[in-house]
Amino acid sequence: MSKGRVLLAYSGGLDTSCILVWLIEQGYEVLAYMANIGQEEDFEAAKVKALSIGAKKVFIEDLRRAFVEELIYPAIQANAVYENVYLLGTSLARPVIARSQIEIAIREGCDVVSHGCTGKGNDQVRFELAYYALKPNIKVIAPWRMPEFYERFPGRQSLIAYANEKGIPVVHTAAKPWSTDENLYHISYEAGMLEDPAATPSQDMWKLTVAPENAPDTPERIIIAFEKGKPVRIENKNDGTVVTDPLDLFIYLNTLGRRNGIGRVDIVESRFIGLKSRGCYETPGGTILRAAHIDLEGLTLDGQVRHLKDVNISIPYGRLLYNGLYFSPEREFLLHSLEFTQRNVNGEVQLKLYKGSITIEGRKAFGDGAKLYNMEESSMDVQGGLTPTDAGGFIRTHAIRLRKWTPSN
Amino acid sequence: MSKGRVLLAYSGGLDTSCILVWLIEQGYEVLAYMANIGQEEDFEAAKVKALSIGAKKVFIEDLRRAFVEELIYPAIQANAVYENVYLLGTSLARPVIARSQIEIAIREGCDVVSHGCTGKGNDQVRFELAYYALKPNIKVIAPWRMPEFYERFPGRQSLIAYANEKGIPVVHTAAKPWSTDENLYHISYEAGMLEDPAATPSQDMWKLTVAPENAPDTPERIIIAFEKGKPVRIENKNDGTVVTDPLDLFIYLNTLGRRNGIGRVDIVESRFIGLKSRGCYETPGGTILRAAHIDLEGLTLDGQVRHLKDVNISIPYGRLLYNGLYFSPEREFLLHSLEFTQRNVNGEVQLKLYKGSITIEGRKAFGDGAKLYNMEESSMDVQGGLTPTDAGGFIRTHAIRLRKWTPSN
Amino acid sequence: MSKGRVLLAYSGGLDTSCILVWLIEQGYEVLAYMANIGQEEDFEAAKVKALSIGAKKVFIEDLRRAFVEELIYPAIQANAVYENVYLLGTSLARPVIARSQIEIAIREGCDVVSHGCTGKGNDQVRFELAYYALKPNIKVIAPWRMPEFYERFPGRQSLIAYANEKGIPVVHTAAKPWSTDENLYHISYEAGMLEDPAATPSQDMWKLTVAPENAPDTPERIIIAFEKGKPVRIENKNDGTVVTDPLDLFIYLNTLGRRNGIGRVDIVESRFIGLKSRGCYETPGGTILRAAHIDLEGLTLDGQVRHLKDVNISIPYGRLLYNGLYFSPEREFLLHSLEFTQRNVNGEVQLKLYKGSITIEGRKAFGDGAKLYNMEESSMDVQGGLTPTDAGGFIRTHAIRLRKWTPSN
Amino acid sequence: MSKGRVLLAYSGGLDTSCILVWLIEQGYEVLAYMANIGQEEDFEAAKVKALSIGAKKVFIEDLRRAFVEELIYPAIQANAVYENVYLLGTSLARPVIARSQIEIAIREGCDVVSHGCTGKGNDQVRFELAYYALKPNIKVIAPWRMPEFYERFPGRQSLIAYANEKGIPVVHTAAKPWSTDENLYHISYEAGMLEDPAATPSQDMWKLTVAPENAPDTPERIIIAFEKGKPVRIENKNDGTVVTDPLDLFIYLNTLGRRNGIGRVDIVESRFIGLKSRGCYETPGGTILRAAHIDLEGLTLDGQVRHLKDVNISIPYGRLLYNGLYFSPEREFLLHSLEFTQRNVNGEVQLKLYKGSITIEGRKAFGDGAKLYNMEESSMDVQGGLTPTDAGGFIRTHAIRLRKWTPSN
Repeated sequence: MSKGRVLLAYSGGLDTSCILVWLIEQGYEVLAYMANIGQEEDFEAAKVKALSIGAKKVFIEDLRRAFVEELIYPAIQANAVYENVYLLGTSLARPVIARSQIEIAIREGCDVVSHGCTGKGNDQVRFELAYYALKPNIKVIAPWRMPEFYERFPGRQSLIAYANEKGIPVVHTAAKPWSTDENLYHISYEAGMLEDPAATPSQDMWKLTVAPENAPDTPERIIIAFEKGKPVRIENKNDGTVVTDPLDLFIYLNTLGRRNGIGRVDIVESRFIGLKSRGCYETPGGTILRAAHIDLEGLTLDGQVRHLKDVNISIPYGRLLYNGLYFSPEREFLLHSLEFTQRNVNGEVQLKLYKGSITIEGRKAFGDGAKLYNMEESSMDVQGGLTPTDAGGFIRTHAIRLRKWTPSN
Repeated sequence: MSKGRVLLAYSGGLDTSCILVWLIEQGYEVLAYMANIGQEEDFEAAKVKALSIGAKKVFIEDLRRAFVEELIYPAIQANAVYENVYLLGTSLARPVIARSQIEIAIREGCDVVSHGCTGKGNDQVRFELAYYALKPNIKVIAPWRMPEFYERFPGRQSLIAYANEKGIPVVHTAAKPWSTDENLYHISYEAGMLEDPAATPSQDMWKLTVAPENAPDTPERIIIAFEKGKPVRIENKNDGTVVTDPLDLFIYLNTLGRRNGIGRVDIVESRFIGLKSRGCYETPGGTILRAAHIDLEGLTLDGQVRHLKDVNISIPYGRLLYNGLYFSPEREFLLHSLEFTQRNVNGEVQLKLYKGSITIEGRKAFGDGAKLYNMEESSMDVQGGLTPTDAGGFIRTHAIRLRKWTPSN
Repeated sequence: MSKGRVLLAYSGGLDTSCILVWLIEQGYEVLAYMANIGQEEDFEAAKVKALSIGAKKVFIEDLRRAFVEELIYPAIQANAVYENVYLLGTSLARPVIARSQIEIAIREGCDVVSHGCTGKGNDQVRFELAYYALKPNIKVIAPWRMPEFYERFPGRQSLIAYANEKGIPVVHTAAKPWSTDENLYHISYEAGMLEDPAATPSQDMWKLTVAPENAPDTPERIIIAFEKGKPVRIENKNDGTVVTDPLDLFIYLNTLGRRNGIGRVDIVESRFIGLKSRGCYETPGGTILRAAHIDLEGLTLDGQVRHLKDVNISIPYGRLLYNGLYFSPEREFLLHSLEFTQRNVNGEVQLKLYKGSITIEGRKAFGDGAKLYNMEESSMDVQGGLTPTDAGGFIRTHAIRLRKWTPSN
Repeated sequence: MSKGRVLLAYSGGLDTSCILVWLIEQGYEVLAYMANIGQEEDFEAAKVKALSIGAKKVFIEDLRRAFVEELIYPAIQANAVYENVYLLGTSLARPVIARSQIEIAIREGCDVVSHGCTGKGNDQVRFELAYYALKPNIKVIAPWRMPEFYERFPGRQSLIAYANEKGIPVVHTAAKPWSTDENLYHISYEAGMLEDPAATPSQDMWKLTVAPENAPDTPERIIIAFEKGKPVRIENKNDGTVVTDPLDLFIYLNTLGRRNGIGRVDIVESRFIGLKSRGCYETPGGTILRAAHIDLEGLTLDGQVRHLKDVNISIPYGRLLYNGLYFSPEREFLLHSLEFTQRNVNGEVQLKLYKGSITIEGRKAFGDGAKLYNMEESSMDVQGGLTPTDAGGFIRTHAIRLRKWTPSN
């Protein structure tokens, strides 16, 4: 008799294939779940494989549009970043993947979900916090945290041996000396040779973007238009290409970023569980979009609101995404606040892309967002309605406090 | 009889030359003060000019070392930035200039200081708040805020006419359609044709850096070593150059940044007085240094301390610099807190500079800063003393709260 | 010929009566405006006086309901406080007063408004920032900042002399050795004998509340019910009184607070213009309401949201109120964020009022707000679905980072 | 053969006595550790009991002075509070208890420590994070989180049965329907009948303070003097008592608070592990001290520094204490920053204590702290060196931004 139905987040790789078979061995009925979030993957082959090794059903969900519209664009509105540098590509994908997995689990009567994440990383946290928030009574099997699993499979060789024993097809490619996670927003590299933080990654590691040195010698100029802080139109000034569909627009931005060598970073970051780890990331389209959005906020957001947003939304929003707290009361709260700030972030930004660099070349605001900048008033040449003597009073009033200051040493 | 002695911040240009003569006309004895903060300037010619038009004395102060050591390096430690993009080059120079001006004013018995800033910008605030904080009873003459001055000289032509009348030498160069402010850290461009935020600056505007397109085709690789968050050594891997003196090191970093097209930005920013204005900036060495410092903090700063520092020091420190509040109780407080965070930021960072882009290629920590990263422990392949089952408890405990969440819609 | 029509914020007292006459003397047509925000005042007598000394019209506006519903209750939702102690009574009244004044100015064709605030305080800032925000082209006459006024009237005696000369009725009461500002929310005392921060105010100063020593010997027990963070019902358990109308409810809370000696504070605060000043305040109803609201948030707000709200809304909201920035983009933003946090702050709080102290004696949540607290789960006696071993994993995971800590000394 | 030596945090009560015997039963050699942090306790009787039931040694450490000087006074400097109300009495005691336990464990060669905390509360976290931070390789036995223990002892009756079986003396007092934790700073009540958040605690629960109704009818007036934000002298104006020793001073403040009914609170709080729980607390001396310290900061701290401190130190410091993160890099950082803010917090505060209420009646600053307040300058009657017209410029400059504001609805 079955112990129950498990919906396993399945990748088609060695780990989750072994987990699939192992779960069956433990007495579970296993259904496989694959999310298309824009990674390069042969979904059909994986499906065939899953079925061949015992999965009762396989679900392949195209989540790319939800990923772009619900996760990526709000992160752009927030200028979200983790520890100043990381654009959160993996973190952003997890909520849509987990949500869809839970929806299917409910629909298919699975009271258990499972995944192949290790017990040291952030992803286990991100998946499981989402599972529990969306379906509080869900059961989770995380084999890599179960002694009966990780002690049985202490290394890759033992997994291969198990696969051979169980008739799981093993692709005999040379394993890369790092692990990756790819989606429409980014690809990450970690572990293996990257664990030495001083080791420069080999050039053949980078997959999504060309090296700046190999990018075209001619800059590419584009215009990105935003409505309420979300991109609604991209125009390539070099060749006239125009894209407006939210998903297509982002894919096209990726194309531009990839061929111009944009979006590589290499950092040591603080994982939620308290370890430091080294990661390399390529986020081509997201890097461009974030630069453009920050620029447009300069023109269209009131300075005080911008400051409050930077401190009170951008930073905590980035952290909660990183820590897997997307499905939470605080995310709802922050997103609600964020949206309000974006209602006048309307306009367009001109950018130049060239060999790894992004240069802002001008911007324009539309609607109420245009009211904050007054060319004549800001002019150093024209008086524009301001009485210069007022500034003297402003300064002397601020100085009242400073005149009382006694330096401490 | 003289109304008193004025120490005028003098640049040698049309404005401050006219102010100098005008102040004499008002009955003041005028001494001229020039700060060498690394700008390109013919100080000797300016001195001759000042004396020739009536200055009693001229002081030329080389403040470059104090600028680098006391202002620039702490700003690097703080990762200070204003509104996400601006590296604060002008803001950083003002405190050293104002402090030296006040010191000379005191020494020379001037009870008045004067400057040529306009009544709409940030610099009047920065200079005067510093004056008042350092010498509470100082008197300030800001002619561009005085109706008797600005109504008499409503435009450049009236200044030229006055200069001609008073025998002030006028250099007949075509005025640039923008104004600039240069120092060792950066150059700024604003006003004139830049006042249209959509107008792309002409290529001949940029002065400090080559365009990325004109930078060398071969990347330049360097290593920057830090002690307590301040750079102490730079090594050029391409040619073996090594520089260690704080001032020379920064000048050399500028050389590297300039020739590799690094550090141009173009923004619309929120001035302290509440206006939006558009500025373009080149900060070659500072841009490199900031990227390297942020990277090293990733390896050497505890994650929680880093977060507290980002929110509670970096952001307010950048704002107070921008707003001219360097000589203030809050700056002392923030700097004191900042220094504590930096005591283990020891190590070196490898960077690649190439056509406008900076790529981090690895880093290494020294001393206590090295304790936070443990290669084996972070490894996804090795267990490293951690019990994977603990992470399950961590996750489920965090989920307690999330399981109670009711989405609002 | 008239210089224009001025709408003067008029109190009936010596200062604004002299200002009224002085404005007429300067050639203005003057209309008088009085706001009823709950202060003790003979509005009719003041009206007669204003008309008798030359006002063309007098407007008396009852703003008490708007004050309570639009300003006081959101401040309660925000738990707004300035510098830990001051409940912002004066700050809260200014926006409704200024808004109504501007509305009447527009309706009556006045292009100038005027007030009797001094040039050192916060109120000039609060009134005028509101004026300018609501009607950017308004002209403001602030006589106490105009040399032609303040030099002519250097002290109270010169005002009295002017009043006698101009036939302005002067009430010959002994001037109190402090000045006050009263409204429905509070009364403030400052200046005069209070300027020595060590001087204990005399007992006869306090006007709104009885001294705790003189309050009843029997505690009064009440229940306050909240919906979305705003009070909707108050019940007096001692005598069965029930009040539900928002304005009546607040007036009744004041009655309770006043007779039980609640809400006196005595502080030194930092004015917006940078001076420190000493103020004493009585805020009877507001003090009770704030305590009750904070308590109910403990039960009904998610812990993380509560923390974000405390830091990112409560504190900046209190500061912007104090600084007169109610009519601003940042207030709109903060209020929008605030409202979202309050949607489940539904329930009731039991309180005991006794001789100056407020004691919370229990609380209850209604609706979704009740989901966060689970009696059984929190119980130390019952296991309630939690696996105790999870907490061990939680702790050991948090300890990963701490185990790397090297104390600095 | 012994499994090792355990140092058990022992209270003398039923739980830890059973744990002591149970640990011996498991094969450990057990040493008992008791911390005197000011709680009412018969330490000698407990020592005799521990030895009688098998403890090899018993250590009773008087930590009261370290508790007051190292934990309580810095918390006063920080104005530390959790969720607006809770003064952190239990949190503050844990670090000194844990540190001493670890010191003894090291000295006595114990490689294991143990405690009797439950698996749902905060104290397990606080103790163990301290243990791991101070001695990373320590082993911790938390019986109430071990199934072999908590399943064997599902309730109080099973513990009593075990005690009887093992000859552990059981005091047959009626168990109170709540649990308490007491120390020099406070006493806490939770669980049992308090688990219903609407239930008013019975009057006989409160132990440390008299009810306000039973406090003396005559107010007690005191003066507290501070140096660098720490109390150095207390003077009772009623009877002339003066206390200056740090520990004695705090004990005397407790006496004053206790007899005047000061310091009771009743809240629902957010535990670190994500549960809400209800707690009642009495913190007599701490409540007085915090009010006095906040008041003195009003006079002696620059307004901007005070604001930065409130947001960036007080709030995170309170949270880290609550969450058991005292021995951490972030606490070192915050404490270092805190101390700098306190260097001019010198002066004295006059207070009135009466039936549960604290009234500030004046204050005075000493040394540099006195420079910020200038009686003449703040005066509304005197001009004091300020030019009133400056305030107009200040206001109109602030209004530049507001005049561009378009309300959103």
